[in-house]
Amino acid sequence: MKLYGYFASSATFRVRIALNLKGLSFENAFVNLRQGEHRTAEYGRLNPLQAVPTLIDGEHVLTQSLSIIEYLEETHPMPALLPSSAVSRARVRAIALLIACDIHPLDNLRVLQYLLHELKVGKEAKDAWYQHWIVEGFRALETMLTSDSRTGTFCHGDSPTLADICLVPQVFNAHRVGMELLEFQTVRRIFEACMKIPAFDAAQPSKQPDAH
Amino acid sequence: MKLYGYFASSATFRVRIALNLKGLSFENAFVNLRQGEHRTAEYGRLNPLQAVPTLIDGEHVLTQSLSIIEYLEETHPMPALLPSSAVSRARVRAIALLIACDIHPLDNLRVLQYLLHELKVGKEAKDAWYQHWIVEGFRALETMLTSDSRTGTFCHGDSPTLADICLVPQVFNAHRVGMELLEFQTVRRIFEACMKIPAFDAAQPSKQPDAH
Repeated sequence: MKLYGYFASSATFRVRIALNLKGLSFENAFVNLRQGEHRTAEYGRLNPLQAVPTLIDGEHVLTQSLSIIEYLEETHPMPALLPSSAVSRARVRAIALLIACDIHPLDNLRVLQYLLHELKVGKEAKDAWYQHWIVEGFRALETMLTSDSRTGTFCHGDSPTLADICLVPQVFNAHRVGMELLEFQTVRRIFEACMKIPAFDAAQPSKQPDAH
Repeated sequence: MKLYGYFASSATFRVRIALNLKGLSFENAFVNLRQGEHRTAEYGRLNPLQAVPTLIDGEHVLTQSLSIIEYLEETHPMPALLPSSAVSRARVRAIALLIACDIHPLDNLRVLQYLLHELKVGKEAKDAWYQHWIVEGFRALETMLTSDSRTGTFCHGDSPTLADICLVPQVFNAHRVGMELLEFQTVRRIFEACMKIPAFDAAQPSKQPDAH
């Protein structure tokens, strides 16, 4: 398999964690977002949104991080990244989607660039925007985690799932802008548990060959 | 089952379509977003993000529209809203997530309100923002649809899937702000095919009891 991605992209980070957890080897293809390499016509043929990641598996071209991870789960079921019962799977997916739909899209690079260059909001307002959506989303996430006995060492039980795969890159994003996340004790506890697992640790941005 | 939602919410609209396609009857509980009914402590106990929809199935409380639809697919498999092969499922989910992650979150009510009230960008800039993300996302979607022989009457083959369930409410949003979508011929063709199906038609905002 070949993963087109960028070290600092959270969505790529999610897929790296999933591949590592499943013990799947993959080749990296680096797409430097800061230098606009995702905007080439060549890359657009793989990924029409001109976003990362894209996973190539044989003749198949796969886009959207959560779709890629569901695909990996279906094609390489063990170790499982989703629990077995429909209700538990729904809870894990709901946590993952809370992060992937309600936090991350508001803070990604193309949106921040629109705020700065089109809306000309200034760095301070851009940073406040960035933090606002993390705080709002993490408040909901912390409540979901603390109010539910199914939360364990990880977001759901005692082995990592798709929910943790989304949580960890989002915490990295918060750290990158200096947020300490003091009020989100369960989020922080789970983040720390995840980072003790080599599959998460090896996937972190600073350990990627294209980190700069 | 009981669906907490709002007539104009695209995420609720998706779940209404899925329930209708599967022939599942449900009771409506109306949460008026314009009047802030989602911000009550009572509703927050069901949905910590204070967003719609929330589906109650017996003792289970389910949030996040795509997670709810995957749950319905697992608990009521027929008619299927996802194809059978992992690669095809990945394509359908990628289309759904392109809309659910890369278009819709940028244009929802809480974000537009932040633009207006916190960033004070003015109505014209807010409308340009709204349309920008639809155009950017639909360009990618149109390319995904036209460049792939698996596109049929619907986004994937000749029966409606999760991809169409996300496409239709997003087209409604575009229409609501006066966008004609002339350049997106395949999106429009699929939208029209969907709207001939009673399950889609009956789920549209103007036909809900809370429409105003």
